[in-house]
Amino acid sequence: MGLVVQKFGGTSVGSVERIKKVAERIARTREEGDQVVVTVSAMGKTTDRLVALAEEISDDPPRREMDVLLTTGEQVSIALLSMALLEAGVEACPMTGWQAGIRTNEVHGSARIEQIDPTPILKCLDRGEIVIVAGFQGVSEEGEITTLGRGGSDTTAVALAAALKADRCEIYTDVTGVFTADPRIAPKAGKLSEISFEEMLEMANLGAGVLHPRSVECAMTHQVPLVVRSSFVEEEGTWVKEADSMEEELNVRGVAHDLDVARIKVLGLPNRTETLTRLFQKLADARINVDMIVTSEHDDERIDVAFSVHEQEWEPAGQVIENHQQELGHLKILSETGLAKVSAVGAGMVTHPGVAAKMFTSLSDAGIRIKMVSTSEIKISCVIPREQAGKAVRELHTVFGLDVKESALATAGS
Amino acid sequence: MGLVVQKFGGTSVGSVERIKKVAERIARTREEGDQVVVTVSAMGKTTDRLVALAEEISDDPPRREMDVLLTTGEQVSIALLSMALLEAGVEACPMTGWQAGIRTNEVHGSARIEQIDPTPILKCLDRGEIVIVAGFQGVSEEGEITTLGRGGSDTTAVALAAALKADRCEIYTDVTGVFTADPRIAPKAGKLSEISFEEMLEMANLGAGVLHPRSVECAMTHQVPLVVRSSFVEEEGTWVKEADSMEEELNVRGVAHDLDVARIKVLGLPNRTETLTRLFQKLADARINVDMIVTSEHDDERIDVAFSVHEQEWEPAGQVIENHQQELGHLKILSETGLAKVSAVGAGMVTHPGVAAKMFTSLSDAGIRIKMVSTSEIKISCVIPREQAGKAVRELHTVFGLDVKESALATAGS
Repeated sequence: MGLVVQKFGGTSVGSVERIKKVAERIARTREEGDQVVVTVSAMGKTTDRLVALAEEISDDPPRREMDVLLTTGEQVSIALLSMALLEAGVEACPMTGWQAGIRTNEVHGSARIEQIDPTPILKCLDRGEIVIVAGFQGVSEEGEITTLGRGGSDTTAVALAAALKADRCEIYTDVTGVFTADPRIAPKAGKLSEISFEEMLEMANLGAGVLHPRSVECAMTHQVPLVVRSSFVEEEGTWVKEADSMEEELNVRGVAHDLDVARIKVLGLPNRTETLTRLFQKLADARINVDMIVTSEHDDERIDVAFSVHEQEWEPAGQVIENHQQELGHLKILSETGLAKVSAVGAGMVTHPGVAAKMFTSLSDAGIRIKMVSTSEIKISCVIPREQAGKAVRELHTVFGLDVKESALATAGS
Repeated sequence: MGLVVQKFGGTSVGSVERIKKVAERIARTREEGDQVVVTVSAMGKTTDRLVALAEEISDDPPRREMDVLLTTGEQVSIALLSMALLEAGVEACPMTGWQAGIRTNEVHGSARIEQIDPTPILKCLDRGEIVIVAGFQGVSEEGEITTLGRGGSDTTAVALAAALKADRCEIYTDVTGVFTADPRIAPKAGKLSEISFEEMLEMANLGAGVLHPRSVECAMTHQVPLVVRSSFVEEEGTWVKEADSMEEELNVRGVAHDLDVARIKVLGLPNRTETLTRLFQKLADARINVDMIVTSEHDDERIDVAFSVHEQEWEPAGQVIENHQQELGHLKILSETGLAKVSAVGAGMVTHPGVAAKMFTSLSDAGIRIKMVSTSEIKISCVIPREQAGKAVRELHTVFGLDVKESALATAGS
């Protein structure tokens, strides 16, 4: 008898009808002989509704109170799903984060799981019950309710799988798996049957919204085999696991994109060792995530620094730098919004030095202007104008041989 | 510096606007120098909405899951109220039932509070914060979420006041206090400035919906002075406290009524000692609350029993008796719905033997048919046809000298 952790997101439990479907699926897994621990998100638009209530009271609602408020969403889901399972004749046990022993640090709104005491869950499993745990939430050592922030429910699922030494963690979502590119943009994108943790991490970080990077990181650290599959369609999903089990010949596994990119250029910073440290420390203090960084010489005594941020953080980032003009000593700030990032990802890339050249050539042949470049062992990213992103994704998808053949597409679509 | 527990019901926190008003009121109490612990219900129609969700899944939703579901309602309220207080510049600390140390037994849906560990609340009070506790909920020794059932939030407030040895417990509601009768039915009803625990208990049990009897019982046991007042109007409320501080000359303090009464007559039960025990044990097993009981002789060997129940319980009660016809040995069941109960309540009554006679005379003079009577030391109740209830309440209100003088009414209405 195995142990499986299954996670169902907000769309999968978006209505009572869907909750009943989810219950049927869980019951089927149980019938196949596995023990099942389930984690769920809040129903569809619940979180938005709660956020709107809070914003009627405060322009900047306090994070601790937000956590108390938002965690009710998943609590509703576990109650309803447990009812649906009982209705289907399966004994279940609903647990909030604190009941499931999910201990986090005290950073309200984006807490990290510190440990999970498996005792309460194991007790229910021993009674032959299915355990349903509220995703996205935990409790601090002080007994305060916390939330894990973005991607929280995926992280809950993986952390539970790790703590319970589960055989696998199944992430049910509204797509059928991880694709070589976003099928809405690249119609010839195909579903991957396997992808390595490292590749998935790059894809996730690069905006392939199927899995949150935190959950992939956690799965990689604890070697929890993940499978991403559809809540709605009965179909094999994509396995995310150790690279060694995979064919290495494919040098690029997928093309990812991110449509919300802005670039800030800080011109004429004094060319001293501490300049960059100061600049990026100020941004980190303001909780601004900087993505790509490029430096170049301005003149003999000064340098220019360009970096990319999420478009939402463009204004605060500029503000922070302006506020510290005195201390930083730069001459000018330039910024540009309306950008996107396209990336080629693949573990085989490091042994195929031609990939970067191929990427730049195909983009410039297609008339796409590359504004920034960043590379790692398993990916190459280019910042380009947003309106050219779709074209760029399709171009790279074809150039790197990822396009699904017409015949295969016809089968997938039938 | 005193310690005050304040309770705000569902109507008082029915919208964001109202929550802000409640926050202002709490802040005022704080400014007057008292420490404040607040308990709140779920916002307006939240509970109904959650119940409807559950009923879409199951015709008879499991009670444990219902508790997990319904407790989210108060959790939303504590979060929003705490935000509103912080917005008003007052430090507050929201606590769910389990966080506030409210330990109950394990009867899901109608749990009783067994003990309250005051440590977490005192810790917040010591930091100068206002503590906001979710009403209606607690946690069992096993760590399961429980709810207290009807009147739960009032009970939470009183139990907190008792555990914290508060100076008083203020129940804020949508009326300005306890009246000598329901002002919607008896326009000359006046607000009482004081009422004893015992009288309030009778009034509460008799359908004066201001306070739930459980909370009054708890206040009486722990000698917690209660005051009932309006969330919306700035006006002195009604104090509920020990009788010794009150004028004893008023023999009837109020007239209560209950519009949902049904009567069941069980005819020709064998006249044996165990007959009544059996009959009422069967009803108790089916969780049916029997109110008034009258027995009379049927013939030498048989008796008739009539009893009243809440109109909603008329059908299940009849069913239970029919199902046990063999064992009970009765000849026939008769039932009547569409009844009401009117009651005169007052601690002075026991020393004024004329009250019952006065009540019967005035009702029959007004052409009202009395179908059942029951008396206690501080009340007399009559079951009458429902359509005559308004007339009966007004009649008794006048006969017992409770009518407010025209001049006083004019003032109250201004």
